Amino acid sequence: MKKIAIQGIQGSNHHIVANNYYGANISLDECLSFDVLVDSLINSRSEQAIMALENTIAGSIIPNYALIDKYNLHISGEYYLPIHHHLMALPNQQIEDITEVCSHPMALLQCKEFFKQHKHIKLVEDVDTSAVAKRIADQQLKGIAAIAPKMAADIFGLSIIEDEIQTIKNNATRFVIIQTSHPENGKNEINKASLRFELDHKRGSLAAVLNVMSDCKLNLTKIQSLPKIETPWKYAFFVDVTFEAYEDFEKAKAIIQIMAEEFKILGEYKNGRL
Amino acid sequence: MKKIAIQGIQGSNHHIVANNYYGANISLDECLSFDVLVDSLINSRSEQAIMALENTIAGSIIPNYALIDKYNLHISGEYYLPIHHHLMALPNQQIEDITEVCSHPMALLQCKEFFKQHKHIKLVEDVDTSAVAKRIADQQLKGIAAIAPKMAADIFGLSIIEDEIQTIKNNATRFVIIQTSHPENGKNEINKASLRFELDHKRGSLAAVLNVMSDCKLNLTKIQSLPKIETPWKYAFFVDVTFEAYEDFEKAKAIIQIMAEEFKILGEYKNGRL
Repeated sequence: MKKIAIQGIQGSNHHIVANNYYGANISLDECLSFDVLVDSLINSRSEQAIMALENTIAGSIIPNYALIDKYNLHISGEYYLPIHHHLMALPNQQIEDITEVCSHPMALLQCKEFFKQHKHIKLVEDVDTSAVAKRIADQQLKGIAAIAPKMAADIFGLSIIEDEIQTIKNNATRFVIIQTSHPENGKNEINKASLRFELDHKRGSLAAVLNVMSDCKLNLTKIQSLPKIETPWKYAFFVDVTFEAYEDFEKAKAIIQIMAEEFKILGEYKNGRL
Repeated sequence: MKKIAIQGIQGSNHHIVANNYYGANISLDECLSFDVLVDSLINSRSEQAIMALENTIAGSIIPNYALIDKYNLHISGEYYLPIHHHLMALPNQQIEDITEVCSHPMALLQCKEFFKQHKHIKLVEDVDTSAVAKRIADQQLKGIAAIAPKMAADIFGLSIIEDEIQTIKNNATRFVIIQTSHPENGKNEINKASLRFELDHKRGSLAAVLNVMSDCKLNLTKIQSLPKIETPWKYAFFVDVTFEAYEDFEKAKAIIQIMAEEFKILGEYKNGRL
């Protein structure tokens, strides 16, 4: 049984990803923050961890990029999950009975329009979507609702008051599978990679790197400059690329290694987009 | 007296930026969220607003990019503020007396290492750094501390228990000045611009745009792909460039307008970096 660290507790979106990615035969290490998640990997409480990295609405979860970089973690896979937010509470309550909703800031943000129509409800930030559902069930809290996936309502015996309350209906989150050791993905299944590099401030240096990628038939699916910690306003670039032939990627790798500073491959893995 | 909207209340970093940027002759519209800040501009409760956009540690504040884009706001200037976090409470209390610290999630994140050494302190998220300082003073709350700028301690009569508790000492935040109308910056003082555009998925299309920028002598200081809301995994690019001659920028603008889709200039302004 594989030990997998997730952010949040059972019933959370991270738990859903774990089930979909690995199947049922796993044991969960529930981590209440991404720091604890990384600590779980480093201290071998888990073999792999699932980490949200990017969302169609909120964009990149930037501190998680920093964690992967700082602790030299490897991305061995990715998974895209459509996000469904449901308002849930103890059974037999109506929306009028709810005075307070606790959830993760990201979930609250993604349901902003719904709550504009229900101004009597106070919004309170919490660390985890499902932990609130559990607390409502454990302490039999009336008048309080959680925003969480359907799985949480099933596990903790809550009723869904309103389903699909997210503002943008096609909301999806990209999760990555991370680990401390180098993943052993076969070259045949690898068609995506995440790279990190730095460039000097010379004009056109990024264009030059992107030209190499284009010449080597790599498709850029994501680019982001991030400030370098301890060196204000010097930037590192995080880039995701997809490709058809691993040899093309190897060629680009060899060239970029010479052109860029601090070049690092965060992961080579199978594209999770269908 | 110019009406300026800030995120947070007096004593906050936004307030410090307002004072440094405009001098003292302004009246503040204190907004408890960035949504309210934008609403203040749109409904003419303020003429200009100050909005944090990027931090050396946490990276871009992505939802703020989305707000500028969605409401077609214009960036008319920018200001870089070094961030100093101080732990403050009612006078005559020691660190041992403090059981709870409330602050903005970003401030808590940036002081993580400090609190690892003081594990008896419970960390609670709040919407604003200075609002907590005010609440401590108003309600004479003992045992609770705020993380806020020195200005907040001065205004609300709190004592600083520990100064400079941020993990990374050279932590700076980039603020932009935004408004609903087109700014009237003179061409002579403009040497920086923020652009937004979309590209089709053709390989090499971003490299082509960056080549134009490089050929026109623009320096890229920031790049970010952001998912397009309502169109999952189609990306818009947000790019900041600096230049010496406005004519160079005009030339690049004319070309990129043809190459890219949905090209938009978010602002042309004076570089705030010294």
